[in-house]
Amino acid sequence: MKLLEERIRRDGKVYAGDVLKVDSFLNHQIDVELLSLLGKEFYRLFGDCGVNKILTVEASGIGIACVAAQSFHCPVLFAKKSKTSNIGNDFWSATAHSYTHGNDNTLIVSKSYLGKNDRVLILDDFLANGCAALAMSELCAQAGASVAGIGVVIEKAYQKGGALLREKGFRVESLARVASMSPEEGIRFCD
Amino acid sequence: MKLLEERIRRDGKVYAGDVLKVDSFLNHQIDVELLSLLGKEFYRLFGDCGVNKILTVEASGIGIACVAAQSFHCPVLFAKKSKTSNIGNDFWSATAHSYTHGNDNTLIVSKSYLGKNDRVLILDDFLANGCAALAMSELCAQAGASVAGIGVVIEKAYQKGGALLREKGFRVESLARVASMSPEEGIRFCD
Repeated sequence: MKLLEERIRRDGKVYAGDVLKVDSFLNHQIDVELLSLLGKEFYRLFGDCGVNKILTVEASGIGIACVAAQSFHCPVLFAKKSKTSNIGNDFWSATAHSYTHGNDNTLIVSKSYLGKNDRVLILDDFLANGCAALAMSELCAQAGASVAGIGVVIEKAYQKGGALLREKGFRVESLARVASMSPEEGIRFCD
Repeated sequence: MKLLEERIRRDGKVYAGDVLKVDSFLNHQIDVELLSLLGKEFYRLFGDCGVNKILTVEASGIGIACVAAQSFHCPVLFAKKSKTSNIGNDFWSATAHSYTHGNDNTLIVSKSYLGKNDRVLILDDFLANGCAALAMSELCAQAGASVAGIGVVIEKAYQKGGALLREKGFRVESLARVASMSPEEGIRFCD
């Protein structure tokens, strides 16, 4: 998505340690007009897939999920990050390792809100190693829900997550795919 | 807001220990069509106040803030919850005690995104003891930003938060005000 790539190029900041900071418009301060366009693009890509629920994970996925859901006319469900893996019988749970924060998160969703009749679109702001998306797909598998696809705003295409998810048979659509980045040379997007 | 009160009455669950569970439509699973109506109501209430930024706190405020911001045509800024109060010089920070989780959270926002030219609408899903809203108002005060008002979806009007904030001079608008609730007698709303 050209508009998004231009925005990342203009306002994104690349730091050492593989950090792409887009907190001026995506995941701290949020440009909601941009979010509306991203939401419509996800609908263009997945609008004919029978999606009846959008699944994301707190916190930074919630905004994009809610705005996209306005096009899909379906509810959003956001997985919560639990410190404990012992969260009782009422939740589906799956572990996601966060490379950013260097810890494991157990993602949980209430069994009441994810079940076998759900056709799920998984949305998130970033895809890098794929741990969060994979954990969300596991929540769907536990619930017997089907995954229509995985949509991400920014994919670090040089990391393994996208390939891993696609190998597993998921349709992954990324609105911007970063081919490489460095503080010295800036950001290059995939063609 | 009648529609919201009816929804809370229908789908909300009251448990012992002053718990009102609305996670089927507001803060775990999210009914985005309802959110759109709530967002428009906040705009009806605060649309003429010169708001140029909506401030909320992760995670459950983000959805309502993003949807409301579509009416205000302004960005959203969500405060992050930090485990440490020692977060450097680039952030405004204020402490909020969570009675729900029994701990203190330090709310932080980047100094880059909140400053003296901002006219802020603070939005959140719940208002009970007022700690989160008060911490957000402190972030605004530190930044020199002015607070146009505080909008909450559900106020527990029998708790002290609303009165506390109004005494401090803030305009507080709650879309549903719970006068009392108990597992035995259900929910009564303020007139």
